[in-house]
Amino acid sequence: MIFASDNWAGAHPAIAHSLAAHAGGCVPAYGASELDLKVEQRFSEIFGREVAVFFVGTGTAANSLALATANRPGGVVFCHREAHVNVDECGAPAFFSHGARLNPVDGAFGKMDAARLEAEIRRFPPEFVHGGQPMAITIAQATESGTVYSLDEIEAIAAIARAHRLPLHMDGARFANALVGLDITPAEMTWKRGVDLLSFGGTKNGCWCAEAVVLFDLSKAPEMQFLRKQTAQLFSKSRFIAAQFDAYFAGDLWLDLARHANAMAKRLADGIAASASSRLAWTPAANEVFVIMKREMATRLQQEGAVFYDWHVPQHLAGILGENEGLYRLVTSFVTAPDDVDRFVAAC
Amino acid sequence: MIFASDNWAGAHPAIAHSLAAHAGGCVPAYGASELDLKVEQRFSEIFGREVAVFFVGTGTAANSLALATANRPGGVVFCHREAHVNVDECGAPAFFSHGARLNPVDGAFGKMDAARLEAEIRRFPPEFVHGGQPMAITIAQATESGTVYSLDEIEAIAAIARAHRLPLHMDGARFANALVGLDITPAEMTWKRGVDLLSFGGTKNGCWCAEAVVLFDLSKAPEMQFLRKQTAQLFSKSRFIAAQFDAYFAGDLWLDLARHANAMAKRLADGIAASASSRLAWTPAANEVFVIMKREMATRLQQEGAVFYDWHVPQHLAGILGENEGLYRLVTSFVTAPDDVDRFVAAC
Amino acid sequence: MIFASDNWAGAHPAIAHSLAAHAGGCVPAYGASELDLKVEQRFSEIFGREVAVFFVGTGTAANSLALATANRPGGVVFCHREAHVNVDECGAPAFFSHGARLNPVDGAFGKMDAARLEAEIRRFPPEFVHGGQPMAITIAQATESGTVYSLDEIEAIAAIARAHRLPLHMDGARFANALVGLDITPAEMTWKRGVDLLSFGGTKNGCWCAEAVVLFDLSKAPEMQFLRKQTAQLFSKSRFIAAQFDAYFAGDLWLDLARHANAMAKRLADGIAASASSRLAWTPAANEVFVIMKREMATRLQQEGAVFYDWHVPQHLAGILGENEGLYRLVTSFVTAPDDVDRFVAAC
Amino acid sequence: MIFASDNWAGAHPAIAHSLAAHAGGCVPAYGASELDLKVEQRFSEIFGREVAVFFVGTGTAANSLALATANRPGGVVFCHREAHVNVDECGAPAFFSHGARLNPVDGAFGKMDAARLEAEIRRFPPEFVHGGQPMAITIAQATESGTVYSLDEIEAIAAIARAHRLPLHMDGARFANALVGLDITPAEMTWKRGVDLLSFGGTKNGCWCAEAVVLFDLSKAPEMQFLRKQTAQLFSKSRFIAAQFDAYFAGDLWLDLARHANAMAKRLADGIAASASSRLAWTPAANEVFVIMKREMATRLQQEGAVFYDWHVPQHLAGILGENEGLYRLVTSFVTAPDDVDRFVAAC
Repeated sequence: MIFASDNWAGAHPAIAHSLAAHAGGCVPAYGASELDLKVEQRFSEIFGREVAVFFVGTGTAANSLALATANRPGGVVFCHREAHVNVDECGAPAFFSHGARLNPVDGAFGKMDAARLEAEIRRFPPEFVHGGQPMAITIAQATESGTVYSLDEIEAIAAIARAHRLPLHMDGARFANALVGLDITPAEMTWKRGVDLLSFGGTKNGCWCAEAVVLFDLSKAPEMQFLRKQTAQLFSKSRFIAAQFDAYFAGDLWLDLARHANAMAKRLADGIAASASSRLAWTPAANEVFVIMKREMATRLQQEGAVFYDWHVPQHLAGILGENEGLYRLVTSFVTAPDDVDRFVAAC
Repeated sequence: MIFASDNWAGAHPAIAHSLAAHAGGCVPAYGASELDLKVEQRFSEIFGREVAVFFVGTGTAANSLALATANRPGGVVFCHREAHVNVDECGAPAFFSHGARLNPVDGAFGKMDAARLEAEIRRFPPEFVHGGQPMAITIAQATESGTVYSLDEIEAIAAIARAHRLPLHMDGARFANALVGLDITPAEMTWKRGVDLLSFGGTKNGCWCAEAVVLFDLSKAPEMQFLRKQTAQLFSKSRFIAAQFDAYFAGDLWLDLARHANAMAKRLADGIAASASSRLAWTPAANEVFVIMKREMATRLQQEGAVFYDWHVPQHLAGILGENEGLYRLVTSFVTAPDDVDRFVAAC
Repeated sequence: MIFASDNWAGAHPAIAHSLAAHAGGCVPAYGASELDLKVEQRFSEIFGREVAVFFVGTGTAANSLALATANRPGGVVFCHREAHVNVDECGAPAFFSHGARLNPVDGAFGKMDAARLEAEIRRFPPEFVHGGQPMAITIAQATESGTVYSLDEIEAIAAIARAHRLPLHMDGARFANALVGLDITPAEMTWKRGVDLLSFGGTKNGCWCAEAVVLFDLSKAPEMQFLRKQTAQLFSKSRFIAAQFDAYFAGDLWLDLARHANAMAKRLADGIAASASSRLAWTPAANEVFVIMKREMATRLQQEGAVFYDWHVPQHLAGILGENEGLYRLVTSFVTAPDDVDRFVAAC
Repeated sequence: MIFASDNWAGAHPAIAHSLAAHAGGCVPAYGASELDLKVEQRFSEIFGREVAVFFVGTGTAANSLALATANRPGGVVFCHREAHVNVDECGAPAFFSHGARLNPVDGAFGKMDAARLEAEIRRFPPEFVHGGQPMAITIAQATESGTVYSLDEIEAIAAIARAHRLPLHMDGARFANALVGLDITPAEMTWKRGVDLLSFGGTKNGCWCAEAVVLFDLSKAPEMQFLRKQTAQLFSKSRFIAAQFDAYFAGDLWLDLARHANAMAKRLADGIAASASSRLAWTPAANEVFVIMKREMATRLQQEGAVFYDWHVPQHLAGILGENEGLYRLVTSFVTAPDDVDRFVAAC
């Protein structure tokens, strides 16, 4: 009953096998091998247009590097208050951008409210040097709350980005989970809706360590080469990331794994919704389920072997929690077994 | 005949197998798994004392993070002029330390001359605020020239470090190659000789991606936790690095692999020394061979399939090269076959 | 009727005269002149203990440098949401500290609420590396809202700082205005109440350009020498700042100037409180008056020559403003004439 | 007999008077006053074209900000080995540019050798990401050695800058001294010869504190507004810098002051050249004289009240010094009196 995080899982057998299969021989380092180039080409096919791809080691690196391409003096990035970049990356975006600040924007269920976003940006008029200047907008898809922006919601935010000439970044640490949730193409969820920069995550969905910055604006690629190296994210044996992505994409494995994780989340959510003792904080759209239950019940479940985390209660939910109730996050992954879900629901 | 670099190789089968063996199940992320802790403990055994170990993704990250622990305003790091940190890391040490500068020190065969080091440090007297202040000394073991500091040479530099109260860092991207070259223990080559900070590399010696910062001063460990996370080097599935090191250390595999690479370098060097058409620039002590030959001969060899790099001629060698001669670097690794070496020597 | 800001004024005649009087001759540069040392000594007398003083060029520099002394990886500084460091310094504190983040804390009338401060700090438990780590607390005295922390309020915040082992910084851009408002000694308002780092401002109170970082913890002084130089705040002709402070302190001119500015603010506040058409947003305690009036009335006053700024309405005041009403800030200074105040009040 | 540095002098009476004259009244802050705008306009007249001017507090700030406009990941700035930016600014350029590195270039008498510059730039080919990428070239006019680049020499370096698409920066801390030395117009010495970025210094030539970044490429001006503020170099009472420049330019005072300083340097140099006991290291072209004499004689002169500094012996001069001889720098300024010069010469 491990629902701690999707990064507690290891690697899918096909991905582990691909790594082993590419372990032999000598090939050019630093991303110049045939396999590297093949996988980069695969990204372009998946997105239905030429893209520039940069393999990196962590999701935090992908987010920080993508945002750093937009860096400007006194720069301000707009993100949801509960966004991973804002609360879980130890200031990495600010570090990579030499002091760029994250400006939190509120919005229900982990999604920025477009009107509030517009209002926050307006606090930085171009002539007011003291405040600083907007430099980018970032959304997570799926969000930290396990919700997913609809295409219309992405478009609304992209329109604001365009109006203010700001690049729009998407944190896709759980890109596949959002994608299969919406059941659309990668192109539809990104550049066709105005996304300029993407952090494409594979780690949480069955890879050991496979993250990439995807640039839809190819003119930024040359600088990114140096930016990645200067920030120590250029891997010498780059093919070990390429080999993972190679298996990840083969036969649409990545979509199957995400569908499984999402299905397990739905099974869990349905069970909890039907239970007498706990309830959903909101409806999950990907592979994270947020549950409200009595604190002592959570403690009991944890003592019985269930692993999941207490979660910080967002302000807009503060009124919803009853006495002695807490908010808990349960995450499913490609390895989550239906039995485990059912055992948890039964224990509730 | 691939002598481009030891990072053109992939992963040793035992290491690839260990990864696959640890692919299943769910374990705590971010370095808290049993395997992570076991491997950290193994580092302490290998170094004969308690050490703090931080897995990171690249050698550049290890060097930059280790040096960042010593950071101070206006900080200056002393390194050999041809050091990897100085010429091959795209300014990463300066980036991680927010502008710390590298002060090159000369010395024959890739090793800092202790007297020159002392002279360079003295250019920054404590009362002269305009120059900046010394913050660390870094040596590479083995060096970028494929040479190895003797224990006495390390001690001489460590004495200077102590006298100026500067931490001494060792870039051990090729730690194992140096170690088996000197045939001593890790403790003898590091903390017993005054090394405070170590970049411990496994990638060039048979791992996919396994690097670590090793701190002999445990008081710096808490800050390093945050420094590693802020710089995007904390891996969620940390056990994929641990699994590599686990196999790397098992049965002293790492030493065997390094002995093989060094032996191949010796075989290559002996062959070249005996050849009529080329000669050694200096005697190799690890797994890199620097060769002087006619440029047209190098071109011919490359056309015949040999892969190796032209090398920047250090100033102190400038007078040695004959007309139309160039300096070339050949690197052997755990996968280099004797046949390949012999074919190359025959082609010379 | 200039109430735009106290930095619209120039220099007090005594300060301008002191500058002119020290214009001749040759003296050691970079802060080593007799005058520099005399003024540094004067600071120690004023604070009733030995302090380390560093002249800098701007209040933003003083704040950023003071906070930079506390810098740590993933560092988080706690400040009031409306604090100058948070909204008016273009990210300088983050820049000087390489990505340190400011965590806003709410509280009425520009003053941090101690309980909320404690709650915000607790969001960063030491073992949770993803969030980052607290590094400092900063309060402004007087605040951006023209209010002043009482000694008890400072003590309450200092107690939290001590409990979490965080340095407490005071932004004293309007130090003198706060001091004469409380009618206590500099020692009482700072180190005796637990303040560790002070930005001491002279510019807004009659100097051309005279700011200083005051360190109560002398052990941080050597690093600050290099930090100030590295950040380009070490002035070669340092005596031009010293000469200003020399006249500023002579005969307690600084306190007289602040008393005048505060008295003008009180006169203005009393007039507004008695007027039918406008009202005070809150009671001023220094030299800033925040007024609520109809927007069209503000426009009319501005057309008649009054200069003052619209102000961002803090959230806790949102409910107080009536229809078509705005919040306006009026600042008095050492040059504000009673006649100007009276003309403004009459025009209301 | 003060020849320590031109920043040991104070302010010229006309400049001190201008400051006092502008001390009264209230005017817009942060550079928006009429006087600020008038002086900015004056800069455009002086340079014979529209320029963007940014007042800053120190020469180090001007250099660092100008170079920061050219910043890029892994960036490398080429400067003379003995340049002020390289040896006397405590790493500020690296700090302002987040880790940009200075690459020293050799050349006799403080001037970069164009051929060596070209060779150094070529060490960073665009496809070699590990090395980093060139970002700017900077020359000092006058140089730290008191020499002056001829127009042809500037053009030779500008041609290299153009060929590599690098901006050319001029450190004009002693701009006026170089200008009157060459007896040309500011336009001829800068943008007409390919200079893109200028640090324009007034402090060493009679101002208290008056430095400016001059941008010939106006498109960089908007970013500089934020860059200056973020780095704490935007002065609230900006007119105190404007007032100094106003008097500095009036009636060509600045040129007269520089001519005086240069004339004193020539008088000093002539005297030394004619003396039996000391000699010139090279011919001065501005207001700095470098002298070779016995160390004991230097000590004696210093004991007799002469103030001047020992100087680091550049490598190419190493062979010139006799036994017990040292290299000494003597700087003249607008306040240097002929009598003082003559007394020093007599004492030699």
